[in-house]
Amino acid sequence: MADHETSRLLAHEDPRDSFDADELRLLRQEEGKQIRRERKRMVLCLSLAIILTSSAVAFTFFFAKKSLGRSRNVIMMVSDGFGPASETYARSYYAFTHNLTEAYITPLDEILVGASRTRSSDSLVTDSAAGATAFSCAMKSYNAAIGVDANGTPCGTVLEAAKDLGMLTGLVVTSRVTHATPAAFSAHVVHRDLEADIAVQQIGDYALERQVDLIMGGGRCFFLPNTTDGGCRTDGRNLIEESKRFGWNTVMLNRKDFDAHNMVNEDQEGEEEEEEDRRLVLPALGLFHSDHMNFEIDRDATQEPSLVEMTKAALKALTDNAGANQGFFLLIEGSRIDMAAHNNDPAAHVREILEYHETVKEVRKFVAEHPDTLLISTSDHETGGFTLGVQNDPNTYPDYLWRPEVIQRARVSTEILTRRLTQFHSQSLQKDTKKSREFVKTEILKKGLGITDATEAEIALLANPDTSPLEVLPFLGHAISRRANLGWTTQGHTGVDVNLYADGDNDGRKDLYGNHENTDIGVAMSKYLNVDLDYITRKDASKWFKPKSGFQSAWFGRSQHEESGN
Amino acid sequence: MADHETSRLLAHEDPRDSFDADELRLLRQEEGKQIRRERKRMVLCLSLAIILTSSAVAFTFFFAKKSLGRSRNVIMMVSDGFGPASETYARSYYAFTHNLTEAYITPLDEILVGASRTRSSDSLVTDSAAGATAFSCAMKSYNAAIGVDANGTPCGTVLEAAKDLGMLTGLVVTSRVTHATPAAFSAHVVHRDLEADIAVQQIGDYALERQVDLIMGGGRCFFLPNTTDGGCRTDGRNLIEESKRFGWNTVMLNRKDFDAHNMVNEDQEGEEEEEEDRRLVLPALGLFHSDHMNFEIDRDATQEPSLVEMTKAALKALTDNAGANQGFFLLIEGSRIDMAAHNNDPAAHVREILEYHETVKEVRKFVAEHPDTLLISTSDHETGGFTLGVQNDPNTYPDYLWRPEVIQRARVSTEILTRRLTQFHSQSLQKDTKKSREFVKTEILKKGLGITDATEAEIALLANPDTSPLEVLPFLGHAISRRANLGWTTQGHTGVDVNLYADGDNDGRKDLYGNHENTDIGVAMSKYLNVDLDYITRKDASKWFKPKSGFQSAWFGRSQHEESGN
Repeated sequence: MADHETSRLLAHEDPRDSFDADELRLLRQEEGKQIRRERKRMVLCLSLAIILTSSAVAFTFFFAKKSLGRSRNVIMMVSDGFGPASETYARSYYAFTHNLTEAYITPLDEILVGASRTRSSDSLVTDSAAGATAFSCAMKSYNAAIGVDANGTPCGTVLEAAKDLGMLTGLVVTSRVTHATPAAFSAHVVHRDLEADIAVQQIGDYALERQVDLIMGGGRCFFLPNTTDGGCRTDGRNLIEESKRFGWNTVMLNRKDFDAHNMVNEDQEGEEEEEEDRRLVLPALGLFHSDHMNFEIDRDATQEPSLVEMTKAALKALTDNAGANQGFFLLIEGSRIDMAAHNNDPAAHVREILEYHETVKEVRKFVAEHPDTLLISTSDHETGGFTLGVQNDPNTYPDYLWRPEVIQRARVSTEILTRRLTQFHSQSLQKDTKKSREFVKTEILKKGLGITDATEAEIALLANPDTSPLEVLPFLGHAISRRANLGWTTQGHTGVDVNLYADGDNDGRKDLYGNHENTDIGVAMSKYLNVDLDYITRKDASKWFKPKSGFQSAWFGRSQHEESGN
Repeated sequence: MADHETSRLLAHEDPRDSFDADELRLLRQEEGKQIRRERKRMVLCLSLAIILTSSAVAFTFFFAKKSLGRSRNVIMMVSDGFGPASETYARSYYAFTHNLTEAYITPLDEILVGASRTRSSDSLVTDSAAGATAFSCAMKSYNAAIGVDANGTPCGTVLEAAKDLGMLTGLVVTSRVTHATPAAFSAHVVHRDLEADIAVQQIGDYALERQVDLIMGGGRCFFLPNTTDGGCRTDGRNLIEESKRFGWNTVMLNRKDFDAHNMVNEDQEGEEEEEEDRRLVLPALGLFHSDHMNFEIDRDATQEPSLVEMTKAALKALTDNAGANQGFFLLIEGSRIDMAAHNNDPAAHVREILEYHETVKEVRKFVAEHPDTLLISTSDHETGGFTLGVQNDPNTYPDYLWRPEVIQRARVSTEILTRRLTQFHSQSLQKDTKKSREFVKTEILKKGLGITDATEAEIALLANPDTSPLEVLPFLGHAISRRANLGWTTQGHTGVDVNLYADGDNDGRKDLYGNHENTDIGVAMSKYLNVDLDYITRKDASKWFKPKSGFQSAWFGRSQHEESGN
């Protein structure tokens, strides 16, 4: 512009037309110098502009990329057996019970990024073991595979890779900690039922030594010999006693232990009381039930911490114990969402989901305060073929109803109620039909499920001591489901794609938009942490099959502990 | 930085420490001037840098926003009654029948952006009318509402708003064109069953006059008096004859007409033959069936065009007929995906979906070549409570199977088979059990559904002429579903969120990521076209209730044509 302006001035409006040739030449020389000076200044300024713009861009990139590796956190949340219909269901139920409008969306809805295709290497319908191995090893494997590939060969997991980077690692679940999902991140066995072997590996008695810094959940059973209360190991080992040898500093076996080490007690309003700074010293092993922890609907808060409480404790512990620039990998599983769906129990199912939602809310608070954190939440598969808005009577079509109040009235899981009924029948030595009917009507249906309009056929079936518990369990679930206009097609898993949610650092989140293979989730975590799972698989390849401490592993066949599995 | 550098030099490394006070003062004055000059230059350069950066940003915005309004296209695709499980199902089926690996993803999977919450103003489970009104008016309304709000008052639709902008508009469906989804974009009645009124509005006999330039689908019935073949109007009007009066240039009533006006004949490979440039002159009305067009599984290609063919023809016609800078709004519906699901007929369902996928592929080709186009694909709701991978036998749990080959063997929809069986029974004057059983085994089960292992109970039920067609229809669907490990919980709709897909111009697409209310889809289209639906609602408010041409509208009550509805 400046040059153009100068030319224009010279061409048309120069007041120096009266100068003679020499003067003009001198003048033009002077002008030439000025122009060159101006040009120099222009070039300088433009260069500076370019440099500044580039710097701004570089600066942005620098800060976006500033924290590769050690200082990053990955929180992988798994809502086991939770399909798209369950999310709609829980949202609608929560809105109903909290008098919210349809505008209510859940903490998961806010972070929907896509969907995950769940098939395993040998079935369109995956189980939780293959599903979790897809996340942990970024690899398709067969149903029942725990941290092994389709040939049964151990594969490095993202948890092990994180540990290899010097990160802290944790597992927080409501199932037995030896159950499929947590196992697939922290152990390598050819079949999920080898839970006794899984426990051995989890405390650190395997090729890679101790990989996990924090374990919380149920499942003491596989850590204790079957000669002790609540133990089920047939090899006589007491892994809780042995744990010290593998470096575990803290062991928590009940609510009291949990409270003694953690400051995240929930008061009535769900706010945390921070009376004193109790600090959980890692590595820490928390096993709060011999089997799975109780369903949220049944949980006695004085006996077991909730998923939210364990999660808060874990986030605090991992932060408290972190060294400088030490990030963490944490797996959190709402394990029993799935189990309630297996039972076709909509009341237990929704309360597990709502607890999971609360946990997501808590984790998202952490994520908001810790920008170098990637949160992923997804399911391994759907369970139950669950649907919302079933037409019960073809003659009144279309009703398009659903009745959340039916679900709200249910107070006990069908699992507990089935157990109670079975106990009742086994204790009633003589078949007192009247007494049985009364127990069924009052204790099971009314007090348990809030059903006061039971049909004669329903009462008769349940009051009959010959009805198998295997029949009672889904029968109770269907009794409330039908009344709430909910439906199930199976007691197993189904193949539908599940929702994929992500929050936190866009550098990891950006890889998760759209429809993905479940293995892509493992790939995204590895990429975000800049780790190579193959390296983990290879690095101790020579040792994988030579477990230490005389542990008889069973990579390629079921071990002696097989029968103790579930 | 420069100032800092200067200060640093002055403070510590100045070689002029030997100068006397005056010299130093002069020197410092000179330096001060230099610094000021430098500062001036700095400010100048920084200003320039800011101006350049701002210009770059403004430039980007300018180009991103350059084409608001008339030159943009919106293609709204509706996969009626298609839930998440149906997408997984169709993907897996297609991969099986085409020998593809699990890596295969569908043309929809590639453009997944989120999910849509489907509830209507009066039910968690919507019907197609309220579902489509949510898209067309960006407003929640009651089940059965067609282009009216929750109080039954007409609301301006995105199609009408597009027309108001001077755009071309089109509807391409496989149901009757007077059915809920296309109706909600192009008509305003208080109940979906008022199809005779809907047809009147669609040809242009209402407050806004003709709004649609291209209609293709089934549903001649509501355009013809019931005194003519395939007509069902009770008011004696022949809207096809009347259509000229409302400006319609072209009428197509069968495949021959379609071919005469369009050049998109599919050859064996599905490629288009371009023998001559047949140009469809708009406005054009194509009604290729008196009722819904046939299911894709039953379609006779010599009689009816497919959804893909109609879509190709529509895209070509809208492009051919467009004036300078004239964009279009096009609704495309895979209408009968839903109806197959209502019938619980998985074979008809999957073939409708695959035809829809092919249509998506075709539309995405167009989108790739026309950058100012926004494509949205979503469902109004799920239908059937469909699941994939049902456990049939609790004793063999977990099988986690599904058998696509069962679906591949089915050749005829259960709707046609039920009709055939009913006809057979009504024609067999005397009950010849042997003949009935043979007909059921051979014509219905074997030739129709590919079932050769029918049980005695199955054959007996179907061979019984007293079995109601209403019972036969789902019975046939369940016969193949069970064999394929597929499940249904209802013959109605369900409440699960449906997948949301988008492609094309990011300026519209960006508003669709994540979990949305179905009304957000209407909002996104309006925003992309920069139209105000309220303006359409208000602009002819005085005329809405004074239809022209003596048409007796029924905004607030069912009209005399109610009985002719479906």
